[in-house]
Amino acid sequence: MVRLALGLQYDGSDFSGWQTQLSGNTVQDKLEYALSQFSGNSVMVTAAGRTDTGVHALGQVVHFDTALDRTLFSWVRGTNRFLPNSIAVQWVKPVPDDFHARFSAVQRCYLYALHSGALRAPLLAKRVGYQMLPQDQQLDIGAMRYAASLLKGEHDFSAFRAAACQAKSPIRMLDRLDLESRGSWVFFYFRANAFLHHMVRNMMGCLLEVGRGRRPPEWVGEVLAKGNRQFAAPTFMADGLYLSEVIYPDHFALPIPDLSASLFHGVLG
Amino acid sequence: MVRLALGLQYDGSDFSGWQTQLSGNTVQDKLEYALSQFSGNSVMVTAAGRTDTGVHALGQVVHFDTALDRTLFSWVRGTNRFLPNSIAVQWVKPVPDDFHARFSAVQRCYLYALHSGALRAPLLAKRVGYQMLPQDQQLDIGAMRYAASLLKGEHDFSAFRAAACQAKSPIRMLDRLDLESRGSWVFFYFRANAFLHHMVRNMMGCLLEVGRGRRPPEWVGEVLAKGNRQFAAPTFMADGLYLSEVIYPDHFALPIPDLSASLFHGVLG
Repeated sequence: MVRLALGLQYDGSDFSGWQTQLSGNTVQDKLEYALSQFSGNSVMVTAAGRTDTGVHALGQVVHFDTALDRTLFSWVRGTNRFLPNSIAVQWVKPVPDDFHARFSAVQRCYLYALHSGALRAPLLAKRVGYQMLPQDQQLDIGAMRYAASLLKGEHDFSAFRAAACQAKSPIRMLDRLDLESRGSWVFFYFRANAFLHHMVRNMMGCLLEVGRGRRPPEWVGEVLAKGNRQFAAPTFMADGLYLSEVIYPDHFALPIPDLSASLFHGVLG
Repeated sequence: MVRLALGLQYDGSDFSGWQTQLSGNTVQDKLEYALSQFSGNSVMVTAAGRTDTGVHALGQVVHFDTALDRTLFSWVRGTNRFLPNSIAVQWVKPVPDDFHARFSAVQRCYLYALHSGALRAPLLAKRVGYQMLPQDQQLDIGAMRYAASLLKGEHDFSAFRAAACQAKSPIRMLDRLDLESRGSWVFFYFRANAFLHHMVRNMMGCLLEVGRGRRPPEWVGEVLAKGNRQFAAPTFMADGLYLSEVIYPDHFALPIPDLSASLFHGVLG
């Protein structure tokens, strides 16, 4: 048996999240079916991040064990043949037996793509988050940046944690939360050792309260300090959320995600 | 009664084309429903172009008559409230009684967004066309450009006309067919006085035979000259096809489509 790591992109809007369900309509179910069809044996996979319903991935990483000996590109193309068009394997690479897609990961990166304005963007429905604004009003980027700075660092993030969250500890090290503004778009970049359930979407809800001028930036710091979800804004929609990269120790030498065929071609630098 | 023109964007992958059907699942059905709900009266619309199933629009133009007096932006926002997320009105503008969305149009522009390579782009499924290529092979852009140049001008386009086409004449003036290549992407820009049924997708099929090296560029000229659909390549997929703009005489002063919230933000110049 060899252990293989696999990079995966998907449009989460067609599926009931990552994790296997009896319905069979999850990304894990579709991937295990495709790998099993290609390899002729039942294959079970473990992912770096169990994305929720409607959440997309540009850089999901998965591992599995197999006795089948094929070229790496055969694995990619052969598996893709059995996947729906909204899921595609990007690369396959052998890893040592002690590699674990979830436990070996040292950091996760999420991207939130937000469109705001008086008009919806119908061609981007389900792929970007949308904040409706009155005509001629714009989000206050400076205020959101300041609020974001209050969230960075190592904190107890209980205030942004879903009730269903199964993590043992609410303490996380959020070492990146940057905003990039381009016209009617804002891209939010998050990087942490790990995230609590709904943590990004709950932070997005609070940042947008600030961006819309309904709360001062300092309020986000107060919500964090109170450590209670009931003081935070509602969970923001999943539509614009992308698991963009999972970072492993250098010695595994895994490929970085290729964004050239995503929505963000030409937008992300 | 006043006549209003309306600009519309939609993701065609959710609908059975533009034209009304008993199923009610067409863009026209959805728009007439929304306008009727907003205005409290039955509204019927006429469009510049009856797009097929799966074809998108960035700049569809529609007209209708109404007795309701509302601000133009109320029409936009009020109608959008009753539309699915994959359809949105962009603008509404009063026009003279002799304006007709279809018959007043002097030119139509289509954009075909193509992704090619060894790997599919799952986050762009149904929004871009995809040409699978062997690893390390690329489309021959120069050969496709030369083939495209043979199609430009006024011709009998019977060779690229679907059997179901209802146009009286197969003669069209194609005055733009340009290719823009960026990495794994090619954008094809078409502009003509009008298009025959499946004309763009049939031309795309032939251009890709050339781009993949299966036929010399001159073959496209021969197909055109033969005037018979059976000599052309299969109709290429609808996924990457966008009605990008409809051009009217200047005195109507209609807005040009806003692409800032489409896939092509940052890509199209």
